[in-house]
Order: sequence, then C-alpha cells, then structure tokens
Amino acid sequence: MTALTDALPSLSAHRNRLAAIPMRQMFADDPERFATFSATAGSLFLDYSKTRIDRAALEALVNVADAGGVEAGRDAMFAGREINATERRAVLHKALRAAPGDHFETAGRDILPEVFQTRERMLAFAERVRSGDVAGVGGPFTDIVNIGIGGSDLGPAMSAIALRPYLDGPRLHFVSNVDGADITDTLAGLDASRTLFLVASKTFTTLETMTNAATARRWVVERLGEGAVGRHFAAMSTALGAVARFGISEDRTFGFWDWVGGRYSLWSSIGLPVAIGIGAARFNEFLAGARLIDRHFQDAPLARNLPVLMALIGVWHRDVWAFPALAVLPYEQRLRRFAAYLQQLDMESNGKRVRLSGELISEPTGPIVFGEPGTNGQHAFYQLLHQGTEIVPCEFLVGASDHEGLDEHHTQLVANCLAQSEALMRGKNRHEVETELRATGMDPDAIASLAPHKVFPGDRPSITIVYPKLTPSVLGQLIALYEHRVFVQGLLWGLNSFDQWGVELGKQLAAGLVGAVRSGRPPDDRDGSTAGLVGVIARMREGG
Amino acid sequence: MTALTDALPSLSAHRNRLAAIPMRQMFADDPERFATFSATAGSLFLDYSKTRIDRAALEALVNVADAGGVEAGRDAMFAGREINATERRAVLHKALRAAPGDHFETAGRDILPEVFQTRERMLAFAERVRSGDVAGVGGPFTDIVNIGIGGSDLGPAMSAIALRPYLDGPRLHFVSNVDGADITDTLAGLDASRTLFLVASKTFTTLETMTNAATARRWVVERLGEGAVGRHFAAMSTALGAVARFGISEDRTFGFWDWVGGRYSLWSSIGLPVAIGIGAARFNEFLAGARLIDRHFQDAPLARNLPVLMALIGVWHRDVWAFPALAVLPYEQRLRRFAAYLQQLDMESNGKRVRLSGELISEPTGPIVFGEPGTNGQHAFYQLLHQGTEIVPCEFLVGASDHEGLDEHHTQLVANCLAQSEALMRGKNRHEVETELRATGMDPDAIASLAPHKVFPGDRPSITIVYPKLTPSVLGQLIALYEHRVFVQGLLWGLNSFDQWGVELGKQLAAGLVGAVRSGRPPDDRDGSTAGLVGVIARMREGG
Repeated sequence: MTALTDALPSLSAHRNRLAAIPMRQMFADDPERFATFSATAGSLFLDYSKTRIDRAALEALVNVADAGGVEAGRDAMFAGREINATERRAVLHKALRAAPGDHFETAGRDILPEVFQTRERMLAFAERVRSGDVAGVGGPFTDIVNIGIGGSDLGPAMSAIALRPYLDGPRLHFVSNVDGADITDTLAGLDASRTLFLVASKTFTTLETMTNAATARRWVVERLGEGAVGRHFAAMSTALGAVARFGISEDRTFGFWDWVGGRYSLWSSIGLPVAIGIGAARFNEFLAGARLIDRHFQDAPLARNLPVLMALIGVWHRDVWAFPALAVLPYEQRLRRFAAYLQQLDMESNGKRVRLSGELISEPTGPIVFGEPGTNGQHAFYQLLHQGTEIVPCEFLVGASDHEGLDEHHTQLVANCLAQSEALMRGKNRHEVETELRATGMDPDAIASLAPHKVFPGDRPSITIVYPKLTPSVLGQLIALYEHRVFVQGLLWGLNSFDQWGVELGKQLAAGLVGAVRSGRPPDDRDGSTAGLVGVIARMREGG
Repeated sequence: MTALTDALPSLSAHRNRLAAIPMRQMFADDPERFATFSATAGSLFLDYSKTRIDRAALEALVNVADAGGVEAGRDAMFAGREINATERRAVLHKALRAAPGDHFETAGRDILPEVFQTRERMLAFAERVRSGDVAGVGGPFTDIVNIGIGGSDLGPAMSAIALRPYLDGPRLHFVSNVDGADITDTLAGLDASRTLFLVASKTFTTLETMTNAATARRWVVERLGEGAVGRHFAAMSTALGAVARFGISEDRTFGFWDWVGGRYSLWSSIGLPVAIGIGAARFNEFLAGARLIDRHFQDAPLARNLPVLMALIGVWHRDVWAFPALAVLPYEQRLRRFAAYLQQLDMESNGKRVRLSGELISEPTGPIVFGEPGTNGQHAFYQLLHQGTEIVPCEFLVGASDHEGLDEHHTQLVANCLAQSEALMRGKNRHEVETELRATGMDPDAIASLAPHKVFPGDRPSITIVYPKLTPSVLGQLIALYEHRVFVQGLLWGLNSFDQWGVELGKQLAAGLVGAVRSGRPPDDRDGSTAGLVGVIARMREGG
C-alpha cells in the first residue's frame, strides 16, 4: 500500500462530486479560479485551472504528496542516496547543472570537482571546434554528426532543433537508427574532410551506435585514410580501452558517471553536440535554467511546487479518472521533437508494473505520451481530442514572444493555443449548435440530422505552460520541470523511475535471431510466427 | 445498434475464454497457427498470429464484418454514393489512382476524364520543373517549398522522406505551422531566384497556409520584385479567383474535387511536390501500388482481405479488449513520419462519438495512434510496451531488403523487429528470470529482490507487416491498406469517417481571440483561464 492507494477511495469521491460540475460553471462561480489554480517557477507560468479540480480536491492531492513522502524522496535524491535501488545507483544528474557553491555527494564523496572538470574539458573542446582550432584534415569542421541512440540522441537532437536561433557553429546531424538508411541519408553530400563524428555510448558496446560508428569510420577511412580517424572522431564514453582501440585519444573522450541515467544525460558530455552548436556560454545558460527549477523543486512548498503540481494532476488523471494517455502539444514548431523526448523520459521511467518492493502495482502507472506541435496537430489528430470516445488530457506549451518578430504569425499561434484549451473545456452543447445552425437559415430537418455531429462534449482537461521565449535557459527549465514531474509520479507510485529492465528481453532475443535472419533459415527454437517471418523475409529477399 | 454492438457480448465470451490461454501455448498447440493467421495482398504480407485470437474468434469477427455490411459499404464507396452524409459528398480518392479501363462515377457523371486530365497536367508540370523547362529567374529550380497543412502537408512530407532513394529532382521542403519559425528556418539559406513555392489550400483561405504564403510572397518580392511571383509560385487549389489575385496563373493551378478529403488527397494534385521529387513514372508506380490494394480490398473474401482483417483486429483490441491506443512501429527510418501521417488518417477519421444516425456511440471508437521508428523506439518508450500497466497493441512494419546493401545494419534491424514481437508475445516469467539470475551466481536474497523487476508479463498482441522493399509502389500499397482499414473500422462503428466537425470549434474561438492576443487586453467574454492567459502572455512580452 502507498499513500496514493490509501487515498484512492476518497479521491474517487472527489471525482464523483466534480464530474457533476461542468468546468464552465466552475469558472462562472469562482472569479478567483485562474489565480487559485496557477503557479510560477523560474520564468515558467503554469495554468491548471482547466482541469476538473477544486480547492478540496487539490488539498486532498497535496496531502497525498505529503503523506507519500515526496519531500523525503526528493531530498534523498539530491542527497545522493542509492534511490535507483535495482541498479544500486544514486541519481544525480542535477549535479551536472550545479554551480560553484552547490554541494553534491554520493557515498561520502564530493562529486562536483570531477563534474566541473569534465564540463570544462567538454566546453573547451566545443569552443575549439567552433573556432576551428580543432579542425579536420580539410579545415575547420562544417558538420558534426552525433552517433548515439535513446538518451544519447533524443535530448541533443531535440535541443538542437529547439535552439535553432542560437546555433552559430557547424551544422549538427544526428544518426541513431541501426537502419542503414539513417547514416546513408545523413552522410550524403557531407565533406568527410570537414566532418566530425561524436560517438556517444557509455560502454562503447551499444549495438546501433557501434554499427553506425563502424560504418562512419569506414566512410572516413575510405576518403581520408586510416590516419584521419583520430582527427575526425571524438567520444562520449567511459570505456577508455574500447575508445582507444577505435582510434580516439583520451583527450577527445568525455566521460560521465553511473549516477547519470541515459534519459537524464543531456546535461553531461552527451550535450557536446549542443555545446558545439550554441557555444559554451549559452550551454551554461541552458544548465542554469535547469538549476533554477532544481532549486524551485527543492524549496517551494508542495502546493506551489510546479513539478509536484503537475505530478499530482498526472496521477489525478491517470489513477482517479483512468485516462490512459497524455498529449504534449507545444505551440512552438522548434519543440517538434519535445514529445518524442518526453516519450522516453516518461514512458521509460514510469512504464512499470512493480513497486520498488517487488509488489505488483494495482493502479495504472505511466501514461502513453504523444504529441505534435500546434497548430499542425489541429489539422491532424485534434478531432479525436475534441470528439473522440477517449478523453486525453492535453499539455499546451506556448511562448509569449517569438524570435522572428513575425507578429501576424505569432498572434495567430497564441490565439490558436488558447482557443484549443478553451474549446476542450467549454465544448458546445446541442442548444448552442442548433442556435448557430438556425442563424444560417438551415431547415429544421437538416439541423436535426447535422446537429449531433457538431456537438462538443467539453469538460476535457488541459494545462498550459507559458514561457517568455524559447531561450537556452527556458529550454533547460522546461526539461527539468518534466524530469522532476516524472520523478514525483514515480514516487507516488512507489516504483523505480531510474531502471529500465523492460528493454532487456528484446535485446536478448534479437541477439539470438541474427544468425537466422542472416542465413534466412527459420530457427527451430522459436514460435511459429517468429520462425515463419524469418522465412517470409528470406523468400521476399530472393524474389527481389 | 450495429452488428458490432450486437456481437459484443459473444465476442467478450471469446475474449474471456482466450484470456486464459497464453499465446506461447497457442503456438505450441498449433503448428499451423502462423499459416492460419497470416495473409497477403499485393506485395504485402500480414502476420496477425501474435494476437489473442483463435479460429472461433476470427470467425466471429468475420461474421461481424459480414453482418455489419462491410461489403455493401465498400461497394457504396467505390460506386460514388454520398457516403460522407454529413457533408453530402461522395468519397472517391480511389479514382485518383485509377488506370485506363477503370470506371468511377458520382451523381451519374463519369469523373475519370477530368481526373486523368488533371493528373496529366500535374505530372507534365512536375517533369518541366525537373527538366528546368519551368525555371526561376535565376535558372532551374533547386528547391521546392510546399506550403500546406494537415492533409496538404503530412502525406507529401511523409512520402518525400519515405522515398528518399528515389528523389532525383530539386530538394523538397515543407512549411506547415503558422509559427513563423517554420518558414523562417526553411527559407534560411535558400536562393529565392531558384526556389519554387507550391501553395496547397483547396479554398485558398486556410489560415496557416495563407499566412505562410503571404510571408513567402513578401520574401520573393523583396528579393526578386513583384514580377517574379508568377514564376516562383504554383497552387493546388480550386479557388481560381483567389489564386489569380495572389498572382498565380491558371496553367500553374492544379485542382481537386469535393469527393477528395484532405487526409486522402496525397493521390491528387497535392502529391505535386512528390511528383517533382521522384518524377512522373515513379509517381505513377506509387498510384499503381495503391490501386493494387484497392482491387484486393474489392475482390478478396472478407476472411483473407487485409484491410478487413486489420480492421477486425483493431475493433477486437479497441472494443473487446478495451485497449485505448495503437503503436505504429516501422523498422524503417524513412517511415519516421508514417505514424504522424496515420495519426491524421485514423484519429481524424474515427475519433468520433456519434453514429451517422446521430445516435451516441456506446463503445470505444478510434484509438490513440502514436509511434516512432524501430530500433529507436526500443531505446525510448518500449519499456512501457513491455512492462507498463497499459497494454498497447503494436503494429510492426519491416522491409525484407534495404536500398543500401548494408547487410550488417539490415540484419540487425530485422532481427530486432522480429525479437520485439516475440518478446511482447512470450514475455519472461518469474521462473525463467530466477533461473537466469542463478546462472550468473547471484545470491538468493539479491535474486528475490531483483526478479520481480525482470519479469515480462507477455501476451501483448502485435501484428507484423512485411514488404519486399520500400519502393514507390510499396508505399502506395501501405497507405491504401491503412486507408481502407480505417474505413472498415468506421463502418463497423457506424460513424462517418470522412467529416471532421471536431476541428471547427477551436478555429471559431481562435478567430475571436486574435484581437485580444494582439492588444494584450484580456477579453471579458471568455472564461477566467483564457482571459488570464492573455494577460500573462502580454505581461511576459512586455517584460522580455
């Protein structure tokens, strides 16, 4: 039992009470609703008034956070305790964004000296690449190709798009998929003599990354000779031996630590491509933005703590209202990979079914996360959000200002963002639809048959996060906000948000299938479908 | 009531019976399972044996399709009847991929002459752009910028990535979002004198598209003068007057028809950027691929009809097993926007809550669709697919061959794809986990605490679609397969898959908010949250 499971019956009673009150009415009844159900942290503003809560429900939720040991859990994390118990590791990616004067230790050891030293080395290397001091055999690097997957890809790739207005270094490219199309399409048109590869793999054994790195290495050697490898590669890894055998020297190898999970590694050396793109000063602003939210998370009372509030709303939607998914909808084209980033952050962290204790979890845990930027999504899947049978809580993100000064564009963008949360909340009832249709002069029979299709049920919840402008600092704040939100939800579910045993079985089975796929001979130790598919693929390959 | 709702009690009985039989056992008990639960169409192979069905359940499902009038509904669509009843339109995008000798009519009129004529004009224009015969003021076009949103963007943008190995024309770019960042980032570095803009909007009034088109026009005029507009723009539209006022002549305007919905318009003039990219001959192969599946859908018996089988599995998962979502997981990096394309196709078509009759639908309709390419997703959200509390049916897509001849990459890609469906199906039980851990020499206490985290429940359903290689024809087949699948599901739910009333309210409310957002004065006719957010954004803008 957890504080949350204890509270579920009384939270359900709140739900039943609130299910009878339309949100429109809650706004009409309470002029303070927006002020009450909104909060700030750093440069961020959170509006959660368009959810089906009231003061009593919020208080009940905050009590769950209180009774559920959120503060103690948070403090244990910041104190460097081994909260990733199944892997016996501390969780200290917050130390990666620390500033002088902060303190982080684990197992009695102050970790900040090596954090600062590695950060300094990494940023110095980035600056030398930017200045052309570190160059290829053909001159200063024009193109950087990051080879990594999962946490070694999604974070930097998402950030490189998000921070496009700040990119003033070489062009950034990202190769992740073992599908050879990925590296082929990326390398097409690049000049090897001015291309730097960054190979990101902690152990230097990740299948996809090492397959791509080998292909990249061959590409370099074919064009520039074996001797060029040392100049055209760098590594983010702790496996110094394997890195050296690949041909990369130690001064071009940037490590990280056991207490940094892959999906939290953007702040470490894994951020190198971003640092090369935006420069050291802005990379430090990015780190400082995240640190701002770390401090807020540590200091703000639960009822005004943004990550905690978002976690409580997440749990309210997931466990009390039984909503299976979460749509992340940035009204910011440059956040177009933010949902993909959050998919890993959230679904890999909290897509679990056992508690830390090993007990099966009785309530729903991590939601399905998906999303595309607005306004694009409006012309794609929002139909289901408004009129589908499944209610999907939405999280809107929007900047007060753009970088372009294109007011006509930005005004429309913002108006559309606000209008969507309004439409989801208020809906349009049969009476309103009929009144509108009558005003067009439509005849009563036509109205009767069309009206049901134009009704919007409304009362669909959303939150909106507003930020001034998508700067490096704001991006750092947004990511840290979601990191801590996911962490708090994990605490409330009593699970370990920092392991990922669920990725092991597929890897293990794939390794055993490689021989069969290569030879085209169906394996006899697999099920009929797996064996059959090997045969189908082999026959198609021969046919083609 | 529909045939499906009538059948739900008996289908649930099948479910209850099958829920007790692990899939592993079904494979062990029946060596014919793979052969029984797989089927082909065109070049496509569908394996649905890793779902929790047996012959009796399949028969019951096929009976639902039979009793539900799937054949009659399909025939009504192909016959040009007004099956989009709420908009009083026929649904004939199939006519766009017709070949000579086919027959399509609606309201007694043969539509193929104008289809063929428009296709010919469109493809001739594409070829003239490719040859340089149609050129910019600075010479042959090097870059094509498509401006459109929703159906005027997702289809061509997805296809342009999918068919990368066949692109041998000018570079293709896509601008969709009203966020000014989209067009700004796209135009950065382009040479106006060699850039052609394609403006895709049926009515030439779509907010996003016309805002972007105006910005593009200004960009051209600033660089090349007003006189260059005619040479640097073309339109896919039926609003000849508005197009002419913009400065585009009729011979550069390519129309389509009322019987083509936006999300089915890739086959029409909306495909122009793809045709410019791959050329007329390959564009015709793409159409012919889709037509292959149209014929299969019309001719194959229900029990061997791929779109029908996929629809039945969809309904089985959605309505009988109550799974809310669907993960689309192409093991093909170039299909990385396929899930985004399907989001519109599926969620906009079937994310509805009333039947054609206007009656509220009692069962769940269209699922939440999401996905990323494998193997990338394995390192991101697959944790939840394997060990989360929500069961997500998966649809794997994989090609027997790649375009690159990079065997080491492709073998790993295929092995991983097959291993994932195997892992989801078989899982790993406590006994297997403990045996494995004991073999590593781990002590019993450690095993006891770790083992629960390493258990995979298994019995998670998936289907796998195998194709020889991602050619234009195969892409056409895949899209048509999903189109018809979505259509059949809509028929079974008795809803109109071809309207999208759910997108109207947000547009309407946004129009009313533009003034308030521009002035920064909170509107007094809106709820406290919407008004409050206008104020917050205005204050942040002043502060920044």
